[in-house]
Amino acid sequence: MFDLAPNRLFIQDVAPRDGLQNEPDFIPTEQKIALIDALSRSGLHKIEVTSFVSPKAIPALADAEQVLAGIHREPGVLYSALVPNERGCERALACQLDELNLVMSASEGHSLANLRRLPADSIQDFSRIVRLADGKVALNVSLSTTFGCPFDGEVTPDTVHTLIQQLVDIGIPAVTLCDTTGMANPAQVHQLCAGVAQRFPQLALTAHFHDTRGMGLANVLAALQAGIRHFDASLAGLGGCPYAPGASGNICTEDMVHMLEEMGHDTGVDLGRLLQAATLLTGLIPRPLPSKLLLAGPASRRYPLPKAAEQLRQRIG
Amino acid sequence: MFDLAPNRLFIQDVAPRDGLQNEPDFIPTEQKIALIDALSRSGLHKIEVTSFVSPKAIPALADAEQVLAGIHREPGVLYSALVPNERGCERALACQLDELNLVMSASEGHSLANLRRLPADSIQDFSRIVRLADGKVALNVSLSTTFGCPFDGEVTPDTVHTLIQQLVDIGIPAVTLCDTTGMANPAQVHQLCAGVAQRFPQLALTAHFHDTRGMGLANVLAALQAGIRHFDASLAGLGGCPYAPGASGNICTEDMVHMLEEMGHDTGVDLGRLLQAATLLTGLIPRPLPSKLLLAGPASRRYPLPKAAEQLRQRIG
Repeated sequence: MFDLAPNRLFIQDVAPRDGLQNEPDFIPTEQKIALIDALSRSGLHKIEVTSFVSPKAIPALADAEQVLAGIHREPGVLYSALVPNERGCERALACQLDELNLVMSASEGHSLANLRRLPADSIQDFSRIVRLADGKVALNVSLSTTFGCPFDGEVTPDTVHTLIQQLVDIGIPAVTLCDTTGMANPAQVHQLCAGVAQRFPQLALTAHFHDTRGMGLANVLAALQAGIRHFDASLAGLGGCPYAPGASGNICTEDMVHMLEEMGHDTGVDLGRLLQAATLLTGLIPRPLPSKLLLAGPASRRYPLPKAAEQLRQRIG
Repeated sequence: MFDLAPNRLFIQDVAPRDGLQNEPDFIPTEQKIALIDALSRSGLHKIEVTSFVSPKAIPALADAEQVLAGIHREPGVLYSALVPNERGCERALACQLDELNLVMSASEGHSLANLRRLPADSIQDFSRIVRLADGKVALNVSLSTTFGCPFDGEVTPDTVHTLIQQLVDIGIPAVTLCDTTGMANPAQVHQLCAGVAQRFPQLALTAHFHDTRGMGLANVLAALQAGIRHFDASLAGLGGCPYAPGASGNICTEDMVHMLEEMGHDTGVDLGRLLQAATLLTGLIPRPLPSKLLLAGPASRRYPLPKAAEQLRQRIG
C-alpha cells in the first residue's frame, strides 16, 4: 500500500558546496555568506556550506574558512562541510562545524577518477578521521555511485551493504546514499533504501538524488516509501552533470520541498523564504537554473479568469 | 507496500496534438506526417495525431485531414484525434480514426476560459457525439483540471466522481484524468486514481500529467501504484504551460518510458527509436525542449575512465 501518512522530514541544502564547486567563476565570499544566511532563514534542517578540499583542486571553494567565519549561525540549523582527507579534517575542526561530511565512492572506477584512490583506502582514511574528530563533531559519509557508476556500470546491493558495514565498524553513525549521476530508478531506490534501513537500523540514512534523467523526485517518493526521512537537494537545482554537458545535476530543493509539503509532509521549510534564497542564487549564476517553482510558482497560485470567461460566467454560470 | 511487480504498460504520445497546438509557427504537413510516422515505428500504444477544432481557433492544426490522409498506419498502433464538438466529430468520422478524444474540464472556470461553456454543456454535447459515432469508433474523454484548476483552485474528488458517473451514464467507456497545469501531487494522485478505479472498475483509465512544478514522473509513479496502466506523455516534453511563460508542460515521453523500463515494466516502446523521433522533433522546434534523455542518454550509458584514473587502476587496482 502507498503510505500517505504525513511525516516530519529533514532537508539539507547542498548548493553552497555541491552546487558552487563546479562554477567556473569564483563567487565572492560575501555573496556566498549572503546565500547561506538566506538558506539559514528558510527553516532547513542542515546546510552543506563549503568544502575543505585543496584550494588548488577546487578554487571555487578556496574561501572555506572565511565563509564559515562570516555566516550567521541560526539556532536549530546544522552546518556541515565536506572533508576529503585528514588535512581537510584538521582545517574543518578549527571552524566550529556541526558535522563533517566525508565522501567516498561505492565503485572503483568513480573512486579512482574522482578521489584517486580505491574505496578501501577511503575507509582506512576515515578511520583515522574518526579518531581525529574524537567525538567533537558529528560525522556523515556520503557514499557516491551507490545506485550505479558511469564508468563501471552496476553497483550491486551487496557491494553497498559491505561498504556500509565497514563504515559502521569504524564508528560512522550516518550515511548518505548518493545517486551521483542520476542513474537510479524508483524500484531500485525503494529496494536498496529499504534493505539498508532494515540491515542497519541504528544508522542515520539520507538520500541524495540527481535529476539527470528526470527521475529525481520520483526517487524521492520511492525513498520516502522505503522509510527515508532525510533528503539532500540543491537550491534552484544548481550543479550540473560533469559527463553530460547541459544536463541537470542535483534535484532542486524548492521543487522537492513543494512536492513534499503538497503531499502533507512537514519539512519545516518556509517555501516563500526558500524561494527568496533561490532568487538570490539565480542572480549569482550567469545562466538559467533548473528550478521549476521559480518559473511556475506553487500549485496554490491562482490566475484571474480571462475577462471573456468572466462575462460568460455572469451570463450563464 | 511499494508494488515492484513488472507490468505491461500502455503509452500514448500526444506531441502531434497537445504539443504542436501551441506552436506559434505552422509546422508543414509533411513534417508532421514524418514525425507521426517516426512515432508509429517506436512501439507506442497510441498516438494523438491531431485535433478537429476550428482552424480559426488553432491554425497550427488546420491540416488535420491532410495529416491523417498522409500518415502510414502501423498495425498495432491506435490513432486518436481530439474532437471538441459535433462539427469536429463529423470531420473526424471521415478520417478512419481508431479513437475520438473528447475534451471537457472538471472545473467551471477552466471550462469557461478554454471551451466557453459549462461542464454540464460538454456532457450534453458528448451524448449527441455518442449517438453520432454510433459504435463506429472508440470514444475517450479527457477530463481537464481533474487535480486542480488555475482559476477556481481545488477540484474535489466528489466533483470528479460525479462528472465521471455522468460520462459513464451517457456511454463513455474511457476517461483520461488530466493534470492540465501541473498542480497534482503524488499523494493526491494516488488517492484520486485509486478511488476512481475502485468506483468505476469497467472504465478504461489513463493518467495525463504535466511537469510544470517538477512532480510529473513522481505522479506517474503514484498513479502506477494506484493501478493505472495507461499514460499520456509528449515527445521531448513538447507543450508549455499557457499561464507560466517558460515553464514546462507535458511530461516527456522518452523520460517516462526510460523510467518505467528501468523499473522493469514493459512499455512496448523501443527507446532508441523513440529518441530518433525526439531528435526529429527538436529539429522542427526553434528552442530547446525539456527532454532529459536527449541530453544525458539512458542510465545504461557508460563513459571511458579518464586516462589518469585508468593508469592508476593498472598500478594499484
